[in-house]
Amino acid sequence: MAAKAGNSVGGVLPHPHVDWFCLQIGNVFAQHYYKILNESPEDVHKFYHDQSILGRKPNSDGTLTSITTLRDINKHFVSTYLKGCSMEIDNVDSQPSHEGGVLVLVSGSFTVPDAMKRRFTQSFFLAPQKGGYFVLNDVLRYIPVEPESTSISNEVMNDR
Amino acid sequence: MAAKAGNSVGGVLPHPHVDWFCLQIGNVFAQHYYKILNESPEDVHKFYHDQSILGRKPNSDGTLTSITTLRDINKHFVSTYLKGCSMEIDNVDSQPSHEGGVLVLVSGSFTVPDAMKRRFTQSFFLAPQKGGYFVLNDVLRYIPVEPESTSISNEVMNDR
Repeated sequence: MAAKAGNSVGGVLPHPHVDWFCLQIGNVFAQHYYKILNESPEDVHKFYHDQSILGRKPNSDGTLTSITTLRDINKHFVSTYLKGCSMEIDNVDSQPSHEGGVLVLVSGSFTVPDAMKRRFTQSFFLAPQKGGYFVLNDVLRYIPVEPESTSISNEVMNDR
Repeated sequence: MAAKAGNSVGGVLPHPHVDWFCLQIGNVFAQHYYKILNESPEDVHKFYHDQSILGRKPNSDGTLTSITTLRDINKHFVSTYLKGCSMEIDNVDSQPSHEGGVLVLVSGSFTVPDAMKRRFTQSFFLAPQKGGYFVLNDVLRYIPVEPESTSISNEVMNDR
């Protein structure tokens, strides 16, 4: 789905009557969202509406700043300098949610030119609208880097 | 909020008319949820309803297995052996969401006895019910450990 005029996330996306559709919606959404974020950040605001909320930039008390209104959401995206950065999406998980919405959890990493890779987790709520969805909620957190000594006990944790 | 009989996440929790309430709801929820997960996993299913969905245990294609019905949700929690493990919650971020719900994104780590620390990200959707909320969606992903060479360029990424 290319970013189109208007604020529709996807006129092509069906509503999530079953898990399978929901998985597809999450994957299609994420594929297009990060592509547009990477290639044309000036269009990312088209995934949102005026009532959408972005959680970004931690305050001094650790809480995220809420960015609202399409104007400020657009201002945020055109000033984040993620254009052309390298992105790796590790997982996109989706579930059908409340009143026709879809919960999407993404984990991955950004590598900005002249900086090292940084892992992130991002949760979206896609709210239904006529013919598709829009991003109502969007919360982004960067993941602290583990000290070298930390490793995974796959035997113990893999099946949790 | 202690785990009580019935499936209420919190009769004490107000609906999220404003961001501040919503932050409190997310924090109070997370505080009680992880305490009960840690101390009495046999009660964790009381946060859920029969229509709730847990995303856990990746399948061979990388998608998460969906666990549904209170019976299977309870079966999952009593078999995960997280009782008494060390938990650190780094961040709990909440936003008011669709039709009275609350989106919650948590990042933190579990350290199981005889295993190393493992970072996770978990997203919840708290759906409204009479007098409070229940967990409608719950998606958990473990975060891959970074190679030693990876570091953070705080100057570049901190304010994204």
